[in-house]
Amino acid sequence: MTHLAAVMATALLIVSVPASGAAPFERGRTLAEQGDAARGIVACAGCHRADGGGDEALGAARLAGLEPAYLATQIERFRAGQRSHPVMSPWAERLTPVDIAAVSAYYGALAPASNARAPSDVDAAAGRALAETGDWPERDLPACVRCHGPGGVGAGAVFPPLAGQPYSYLLAQLQAWGTGRRHGEPMALMGAVAGRLDADEQRALAAYFATRPLAVADPADDLPDPSPPPATASVSTPAMTVAGANAVVPEHLGAVPAGRAEAASRFTPPSRDALPEGPLGEMVRLGARLFRHTNTDPRSAPHVGNDQTCAGCHLDNGRRADASPMWAAWVAYPAYRGKNQRVDTMAERIQGCFRYSMNAQDSVSGQVPETNGLVLDALQSYIFWLATGAPTGDTAMSGRGYPRLQPPAEGFDRTRGAALYAEHCALCHGAEGEGLLVDGEVVFPPLWGPRSYNWGAGMHRVDTAAAFIAANMPLLDTVRLTPQEAWDVAAYINAHERPQDPRFDGSVERTAARFHASPFDLYGEPLGVDGAVLGQGVAKD
Amino acid sequence: MTHLAAVMATALLIVSVPASGAAPFERGRTLAEQGDAARGIVACAGCHRADGGGDEALGAARLAGLEPAYLATQIERFRAGQRSHPVMSPWAERLTPVDIAAVSAYYGALAPASNARAPSDVDAAAGRALAETGDWPERDLPACVRCHGPGGVGAGAVFPPLAGQPYSYLLAQLQAWGTGRRHGEPMALMGAVAGRLDADEQRALAAYFATRPLAVADPADDLPDPSPPPATASVSTPAMTVAGANAVVPEHLGAVPAGRAEAASRFTPPSRDALPEGPLGEMVRLGARLFRHTNTDPRSAPHVGNDQTCAGCHLDNGRRADASPMWAAWVAYPAYRGKNQRVDTMAERIQGCFRYSMNAQDSVSGQVPETNGLVLDALQSYIFWLATGAPTGDTAMSGRGYPRLQPPAEGFDRTRGAALYAEHCALCHGAEGEGLLVDGEVVFPPLWGPRSYNWGAGMHRVDTAAAFIAANMPLLDTVRLTPQEAWDVAAYINAHERPQDPRFDGSVERTAARFHASPFDLYGEPLGVDGAVLGQGVAKD
Repeated sequence: MTHLAAVMATALLIVSVPASGAAPFERGRTLAEQGDAARGIVACAGCHRADGGGDEALGAARLAGLEPAYLATQIERFRAGQRSHPVMSPWAERLTPVDIAAVSAYYGALAPASNARAPSDVDAAAGRALAETGDWPERDLPACVRCHGPGGVGAGAVFPPLAGQPYSYLLAQLQAWGTGRRHGEPMALMGAVAGRLDADEQRALAAYFATRPLAVADPADDLPDPSPPPATASVSTPAMTVAGANAVVPEHLGAVPAGRAEAASRFTPPSRDALPEGPLGEMVRLGARLFRHTNTDPRSAPHVGNDQTCAGCHLDNGRRADASPMWAAWVAYPAYRGKNQRVDTMAERIQGCFRYSMNAQDSVSGQVPETNGLVLDALQSYIFWLATGAPTGDTAMSGRGYPRLQPPAEGFDRTRGAALYAEHCALCHGAEGEGLLVDGEVVFPPLWGPRSYNWGAGMHRVDTAAAFIAANMPLLDTVRLTPQEAWDVAAYINAHERPQDPRFDGSVERTAARFHASPFDLYGEPLGVDGAVLGQGVAKD
Repeated sequence: MTHLAAVMATALLIVSVPASGAAPFERGRTLAEQGDAARGIVACAGCHRADGGGDEALGAARLAGLEPAYLATQIERFRAGQRSHPVMSPWAERLTPVDIAAVSAYYGALAPASNARAPSDVDAAAGRALAETGDWPERDLPACVRCHGPGGVGAGAVFPPLAGQPYSYLLAQLQAWGTGRRHGEPMALMGAVAGRLDADEQRALAAYFATRPLAVADPADDLPDPSPPPATASVSTPAMTVAGANAVVPEHLGAVPAGRAEAASRFTPPSRDALPEGPLGEMVRLGARLFRHTNTDPRSAPHVGNDQTCAGCHLDNGRRADASPMWAAWVAYPAYRGKNQRVDTMAERIQGCFRYSMNAQDSVSGQVPETNGLVLDALQSYIFWLATGAPTGDTAMSGRGYPRLQPPAEGFDRTRGAALYAEHCALCHGAEGEGLLVDGEVVFPPLWGPRSYNWGAGMHRVDTAAAFIAANMPLLDTVRLTPQEAWDVAAYINAHERPQDPRFDGSVERTAARFHASPFDLYGEPLGVDGAVLGQGVAKD
């Protein structure tokens, strides 16, 4: 077991049995408040403050309320030279694994606190667009909150809170990643992110998150706030600039991932600032909100029976080419669908998403949203707006759906897929495919089990999932799977149980023959635990 | 009373009291079968045959089963020199008014018969497109069947049957109109029509109608027949050629009517031949059918409570610019509508048409079509297809809706409107606004009374109706109203009772205040018979 692994195991043990953790907690408190002069260990509180809320003037991070495993990992990174700081580096060198676990447990148990503030000469609101929506079309840059949780409050032990971190600390870290001084995190995510931001953007983002509340109050929308009024020019600046001259741009940037189609000129949906005025604009805004918060918004949540949202698959809130962008879908409906053996309107197509991908059968209402109701009208208004200017009836828009993959010459292998999943997917989606929610908001959607899409959803098919993965996963393009790897990992994911197909007629065999007769469909195959036939379904927890 | 009026009055009397009409009928039979050698009157049957089915070789018209008033009028036209024929002209001169009424009554009472056939060297199918859909975009040429009834079986006493008339007769008449030898019909309609057809088109149309059945079997669709397979090049030829060099083109052709907007480059919906393949194409075809036969097709008829169709207002089956073309509507929805005070999807907008313009409250079902049902899905598929290539979200397409008229400086006057209506509108829509149906198919929609649009329809507003009329009425552009005339005639039409507003709450006064507070809305005004307040509604007959 590596040193780091030992530390994390200890930390997890402490967290999971807090009652018996009084001794480590007290040891952590002592180190935090007093240090250990004999060993040359300074008190944490000297810089991070007694409440653990960090220090703006010193650039010291907020620690209070952070995940102990995250804190322990960071101390280990200082020890490993992946982070560097004149005080922290020697301090970390002097700690034992037990010290690390103790002090991590102590700060993790403190009530969240923050002493952050943004400097008066930086407009905190200017960072909102990049933080909440990123800049995917231009720079393959997902929103910060896509990993760091709604409002940047943090997501699990890997993605720490940004909200309430001191401005000076956040800015220093972005600069350290951008120049390579800080490194070593999984899949080199933050190096890539920081390398795509210019100095103004780094400041704007640091200021934005420094001033965010520590807990999710009202999760942000995908569009600029209607009030206070849309920001001045400084808001749009970040999204329009490109990575600065002194930014480190990873070599692979600019290469097109295996599954993504190269497109010289692609359709561009309207700017998020360009909402229609009046009631239609309000409906578009509501639709954008439901698209992102489908499972939590009180209007759509009664129809969602799992932990999925529209935006979970339709990336960049339905804007992203090669991730089933909604602008390409709008102009292609009504359309005949072999799945339903009928011509579906857009309203009916969206109801299909609720029925299958969002498993409406296990929702509070048990039903998909009604056709003329607010939910479907708002979603259609949003999708219609995204398609502004797109030619009606064009079923071949560049970027529609996902680029289809050739069937793999040697088939697919879920055992190979399991290893790939552990290496590249589990970080976000969880070792058991359980995904990650923060305050009910989906950060990483569950990929199997009772909270995932059901056996009738398009994504349960290996070919569909492989195509999506090849073009889009992992979310940031620092790692790209080959087509074969995408097939394998898709097979692994879809060889797990999930909620029953709503078309189930009481017999897996009959349902398999009727709706799942494809070599890319594992429903009805003996691939479950101990060779069980897949398609039993799993009940909602 | 003029000679013609006397003849028609006699003819109408005969038709309305057939039991006591035995003497005139017998007199007519004698003239028809034997003539009156003493007066130099040859027997009709000599040329028109004993069954009255006409004679192809002689170019003699089919008379059997035609409206007596129409027949009488034609004899009068021979007498007046508006028609000319070496046999008919002297023959007609020798008849008394009583003779004319008698022989007209006789042939009108015969069972419809036809001895027509098309020559072997003319493709009868080639005339279908012009006959069934006309060529409005290029030549302001409505479909023949638009006035002559479904399949050309005739419509009332003004628009005679074309179906089953000998090819030779039909072609001779088109040539006579085109050169001005035949004239005198109301509003110079046929002179204008024939003048816009070239010789090939005239032959194709004559052959098409010569071979049509005498009664409406299955009314034609707006699109080419799916079987036999879509025609060869000869079908599309008529719609693509322009008036030949020897055609008489009325001087006013090319002028833009008062209410029609000039547009350098207008959107063009897809050709009727360019249907999508497969199930979507079938849905588009069904939608086109429902659009035209809304009140009779068994799928949509249960939701239509009057004698209206989509195509009655949306001319050229939803294609015609400045007549609320559906291609412009598709890309503009979802949209906020002040009428509903909500954002409506296209499905909801169409339901609004059923609720108001088609008065669903008095229909068999009492309901508008359900949103996910076949009727609305098919109509949406058709409208979507019409918009192929139109830019999503473009709410300013040239030709959308109708060009709005300025409010008239001196108001509008329904008394002046009554005179204009009698002169220009009653010919088709009837002296009492009752419209005209043939075998249930709407030829001319009723404009008021129980079979018209209700008090909630957009068309009941004087400004809306005036704009529609100024741009589009009369159907053929041989007569155009000034904007002031359009306002006056719209006021006359909409100062009549019609089915109640579905939003009626029991009080005309309250309903007027709530939904009709506009100077262009006569609901609630004391303009009815004997000063009665309008808005009482009229019950379905």
